[in-house]
Amino acid sequence: MSPVKPRTLSGFMELTPSRQVQFDRMVSILSETYKRYGFTNLDTPLIESSDILLAKGGGETEKQIYRFQKGDADLSLRFDLTVPLAKYVTLYQNELTFPFRRFQIGKVYRGERAQRGRFREFYQADIDVIGDGSLDISNEAEIPSIIYTAFTELGLSRFKIRVNNRKVLNGFYAILGLSEKASEIMQIVDKLEKIGAEKVKNLLIEASITSEQADEILSFTSITGSNSEVLNALAAYKGQHELFDTGLDELTALTKYLAVFGVPEEHFAVDLTIARGLDYYTGTVYETVMLDHPEIGSICSGGRYDNLAEYYTNKTLPGVGISIGLTRLFYVLGEQGYLNDELLTSPADVLVLPMTDDLSLAISIAQHLRSEGIRTQVYTENKKFKAKLTYANKLQIPFALLLGEDEITNKVVAVKNLDTGVQETMSKQDAITHIKAYLDTRKQGKPIKE
Amino acid sequence: MSPVKPRTLSGFMELTPSRQVQFDRMVSILSETYKRYGFTNLDTPLIESSDILLAKGGGETEKQIYRFQKGDADLSLRFDLTVPLAKYVTLYQNELTFPFRRFQIGKVYRGERAQRGRFREFYQADIDVIGDGSLDISNEAEIPSIIYTAFTELGLSRFKIRVNNRKVLNGFYAILGLSEKASEIMQIVDKLEKIGAEKVKNLLIEASITSEQADEILSFTSITGSNSEVLNALAAYKGQHELFDTGLDELTALTKYLAVFGVPEEHFAVDLTIARGLDYYTGTVYETVMLDHPEIGSICSGGRYDNLAEYYTNKTLPGVGISIGLTRLFYVLGEQGYLNDELLTSPADVLVLPMTDDLSLAISIAQHLRSEGIRTQVYTENKKFKAKLTYANKLQIPFALLLGEDEITNKVVAVKNLDTGVQETMSKQDAITHIKAYLDTRKQGKPIKE
Repeated sequence: MSPVKPRTLSGFMELTPSRQVQFDRMVSILSETYKRYGFTNLDTPLIESSDILLAKGGGETEKQIYRFQKGDADLSLRFDLTVPLAKYVTLYQNELTFPFRRFQIGKVYRGERAQRGRFREFYQADIDVIGDGSLDISNEAEIPSIIYTAFTELGLSRFKIRVNNRKVLNGFYAILGLSEKASEIMQIVDKLEKIGAEKVKNLLIEASITSEQADEILSFTSITGSNSEVLNALAAYKGQHELFDTGLDELTALTKYLAVFGVPEEHFAVDLTIARGLDYYTGTVYETVMLDHPEIGSICSGGRYDNLAEYYTNKTLPGVGISIGLTRLFYVLGEQGYLNDELLTSPADVLVLPMTDDLSLAISIAQHLRSEGIRTQVYTENKKFKAKLTYANKLQIPFALLLGEDEITNKVVAVKNLDTGVQETMSKQDAITHIKAYLDTRKQGKPIKE
Repeated sequence: MSPVKPRTLSGFMELTPSRQVQFDRMVSILSETYKRYGFTNLDTPLIESSDILLAKGGGETEKQIYRFQKGDADLSLRFDLTVPLAKYVTLYQNELTFPFRRFQIGKVYRGERAQRGRFREFYQADIDVIGDGSLDISNEAEIPSIIYTAFTELGLSRFKIRVNNRKVLNGFYAILGLSEKASEIMQIVDKLEKIGAEKVKNLLIEASITSEQADEILSFTSITGSNSEVLNALAAYKGQHELFDTGLDELTALTKYLAVFGVPEEHFAVDLTIARGLDYYTGTVYETVMLDHPEIGSICSGGRYDNLAEYYTNKTLPGVGISIGLTRLFYVLGEQGYLNDELLTSPADVLVLPMTDDLSLAISIAQHLRSEGIRTQVYTENKKFKAKLTYANKLQIPFALLLGEDEITNKVVAVKNLDTGVQETMSKQDAITHIKAYLDTRKQGKPIKE
């Protein structure tokens, strides 16, 4: 039979073993950080009934979704982690305790047009806090502070979390008497960075907005400066509309609490141009940019919503959440050479090289090392010594442990550091101490090195 | 709009937060154990092209598979982790180093008839070692020894790994001149435990096997005793067929090395009735039973194969692997009450309870605790004190940290141990030490308690 040519589908990331170690290290830091903030892990099914997943219905999402029949069932693969969360919270609301804080790091599916750096299967790393009826503003500061902590522990430093408040925006448009056009205007203003003020003004006028109103809008969105400068400038609009005033109070509380959470001002900015496309955000919104790579867009976005699960329940479940597009972020980091290759990516710390036919002693020593927490392989194949060392070098295993007749007789081991080439003979116990000390030095550093 | 009633598909496990912690703890122990033995993690796509996944084709599998069209593409969800491994190893063979040791813990999909304890989406936890052309017998001992270690660390003790060798079986049937019927006979013999020797003999005779041959077969499969007794009894068949002799040598080496790996004889048994249904096993085969629950069948199975990727490449890739049906195992452990509920399942170690409107100090203290590795939540909602404590109790958070005007003025915190009810006032630094010490006591024990 002629073999089938194996391939991996385009738009599906599949990593080499050493890259996988780097990816896993990032996942581990994210989940440990989320846990430290008291978030609980969820692992919902990848498949849901289509009527559940598409309850909100319509739009771009529906075209991209992986949807299929199995028997009588109309099924779909999840396209984000928010809809499954809404389902989960509704379904288990009597067993859950609110505010409910959950994180989920999992794969989602979108049949986007395949292109470099775009994925059809990709990880999202989400955190959300869901309140029962209400939710304090401090949660809206905690969410970006967690992202700040996580990114910092990953080793990212050249990033900025941009925050805004939908109430401020909607309030401002209400002041101008443009409430009904707010959504359309925000879509136009969103292009400011790309096409510039003049073209935005033309588009606004095309949308039947007067030249004066367009100037007001552009003057509003051009408010920049330090966070206190922006807040001061916004104070000028105060007292004209309740929604605006509430939004400004929230934005003020947010910046105050972000400082309390220890987020340095260089890592967050009130930015009035941020609106987020999704209608369901009602308060604070976030985007996060890599300062040296604005071209890749936001690597972490989210916001405050008033009604997580309106399609499933009449119960009001306000919340705030944020999502990291992890697969894409990892891809970009790799492309830019930002992954720290100095950290170990080998599958083992030690390769035991038996020089005798019987492997018993090699296995015993390997078991001893493993019981000490040292990741150990025994090279079992009957190959020449050079081939065995090549194996260790290719996998970048830092230590080879040589075990010939001499060593067995003298109850010692020969420890070869494959990074330095230095080989020393010592007792088994000394070898363990020696190896652990060196491994500690190889654990220094963060996964990302900008 | 009337809400869509949310539900989770039947056959899809979805856990409550505390159960999820217990599941994750098991996954973590498995992956840490696999890593300690020098296995590298893979995370292949859940979707593959159907021609790749079904290259082997036919059979029960094809009926159960989740297969669908997306645009022009004929896609399927993976139904095990072995076929994706075969694809991966073929695709990246020039970048991989052999023997290639990989683990993968991931979801697979089979549209089985839904029934209690049967899952359509379930985790498998696999390890495989793949050789390039050849692979030493010691690997066939290492694989079950890893399972022994992993199960022991999980807290399982009432289990036994049953091992056999297909060469011994095929060699024995060759001695009887029944090579062509070997596969059919093994299927009948597989029923021995269920239907007894007499009915098996009848079935064998129905399959045109003489009464004398049937007696020989039953006498062979009734060989039991300690491992050395079984091996001694098998020695009586030696010298009649090369395949049998090779198989017996392998079985002998396997039991020798299992002892070297430190697996106690009570946890493994040479069992001549084990054959495994799959044709592609060619040497050692494994099954693992829970001694008190034989009714649930094998919780961990695998074996040695000569040709992992014959459908993708002409290259010979022999290997040995084993797979834990993790979702089903977890379900059974839960049903039997074997999950250790004494280990913490709360989302946080400490709940900070601010008694003032401004949350700044509560947040600062929470950030301090987090920086010390203590999982901390701040209760942010404006509720009565009792409601706040109820929140902590429902989530079984062990500590509440009370922060009123008095505490703020005196620069102390009131630490309430919610397990014991004892409340003490102390400095922040003493609180950290106190909390950590108690948490250590709550970490004693293993996830499974039989």
